[in-house]
Amino acid sequence: MTYRELFGHIRKKKSFLCVGLDTDMDRIPKHLLSEDDPVFAFNRAIVDATLPFAVAYKPNLAFYEVLGAVGWESLKKTVNYIRSKSPEIFLIADAKRGDIGNTSKMYARTFFEQLDVDAVTLSPYMGQDTVMPFLNFKDKWAVLLALTSNPSAADFQYFEDKSGRKLYEKVLETSRYWGTSDQLMYVVGATRAQELAKVRKLVPDNFLLVPGVGAQGGSLEEVARYGMNDHCGLLVNSSRGILYASEGKDFADKAGEKARALQQQMERILQSNGLL
Amino acid sequence: MTYRELFGHIRKKKSFLCVGLDTDMDRIPKHLLSEDDPVFAFNRAIVDATLPFAVAYKPNLAFYEVLGAVGWESLKKTVNYIRSKSPEIFLIADAKRGDIGNTSKMYARTFFEQLDVDAVTLSPYMGQDTVMPFLNFKDKWAVLLALTSNPSAADFQYFEDKSGRKLYEKVLETSRYWGTSDQLMYVVGATRAQELAKVRKLVPDNFLLVPGVGAQGGSLEEVARYGMNDHCGLLVNSSRGILYASEGKDFADKAGEKARALQQQMERILQSNGLL
Repeated sequence: MTYRELFGHIRKKKSFLCVGLDTDMDRIPKHLLSEDDPVFAFNRAIVDATLPFAVAYKPNLAFYEVLGAVGWESLKKTVNYIRSKSPEIFLIADAKRGDIGNTSKMYARTFFEQLDVDAVTLSPYMGQDTVMPFLNFKDKWAVLLALTSNPSAADFQYFEDKSGRKLYEKVLETSRYWGTSDQLMYVVGATRAQELAKVRKLVPDNFLLVPGVGAQGGSLEEVARYGMNDHCGLLVNSSRGILYASEGKDFADKAGEKARALQQQMERILQSNGLL
Repeated sequence: MTYRELFGHIRKKKSFLCVGLDTDMDRIPKHLLSEDDPVFAFNRAIVDATLPFAVAYKPNLAFYEVLGAVGWESLKKTVNYIRSKSPEIFLIADAKRGDIGNTSKMYARTFFEQLDVDAVTLSPYMGQDTVMPFLNFKDKWAVLLALTSNPSAADFQYFEDKSGRKLYEKVLETSRYWGTSDQLMYVVGATRAQELAKVRKLVPDNFLLVPGVGAQGGSLEEVARYGMNDHCGLLVNSSRGILYASEGKDFADKAGEKARALQQQMERILQSNGLL
């Protein structure tokens, strides 16, 4: 998918919502536990309820790997199910990988051939040769961690050189030349909204994947104010706020309502930015 | 396992060799491809041949994930096989994970409960709260990337603050207080042997996991000169140099010979450092 196609999809759905599939066996409604594959049953219901309001889904690998081989099957079924319902959905494997070239090549094949997602999140710590194997796949994306939403992001991402440039800025400045804005996105946490202005100066065209709205406390309006560009340039993720809106049999309805509320907020924002 | 127990094991085997299990379906001998589980068949033969000479094994997750659910089964069988042959072997999942707290908790359960390895490699980019969930498991280890062996390690790991301190030094200085030297190891590439002296000043007691000897060109003598401490403090990894020593039916014998040659070199080094 190109960034123009992604923007087209955003305009069509009037939404830049990404639903994070952090499907936790300890938090899904109890009545699903008797299903053959409770994780897939939960995901399918969530997808059915949220699909009208979302342009992207982001399964979080940890929640599948913790179940071993069975979890990989649930993940694969989930990806295939989303693909069958809507081929134009943007699928992100939230895996935060990053390894030397020959290993990264294997991870790229894992996510782009085994799983057939559009994008994978990567840690930049080991530098360019950990990212390049992902960029050799046509129409696929690498989503590099820049400034994350967690409390200890500042431990190293705010490490500064003598000119006051922080590590996350250095990551943006260096990596933006590794590929085009049809290939590279960046993770910037919603909890750091005011830093988004700085991020936008460094990478004006790239899409940003923004976690941290909802459970982690980030504000959608702030994110849009500082991060939106002329092709939207944002995918805002919500995971727990949607998935666990209810613990009862109405979990999917409640998830749909939460997703719809976010979509409506996003529609207003897109409109007021002249993007619809 | 404590670091004293690990050192005891090193003295007993006169070796600080870690065998990296980067088992690549495209590189294993052709006659194994007719086996039910070629990856496990290969690993079992490699383990049988190298076990007398190694204190640790390090499966590289990418090479298993690329096969999907089947790969996870091969990995699990490999871990169980090594455990059954020698409970005192130190097992490292080379996964380079790192995510926000609730996700890291899932990864910790993946590697310490699903797989039952002793240690997992982690990227420090997202800071302390990505590492702590791994340290809540008794007798388990987090192996943090510090200075890696790949060509582009310098992209960000050499990013310097105004006092000339590099990012990898900052990672060591900050993270060494997150846990004890029974919980934290660091990855330092053999291709950066002279930086090991600096690393040792910052983390005198911690074990270092050193990849890059062999295929990547690092020297064992150099690594030992700059990195060894009074309880050895080194696990030196070799993957491709051992696994693919021969492409024929004699692959396991040749792997054993390569491992034995490294063990003998290590024995001489341990002896000349007064550690045997």
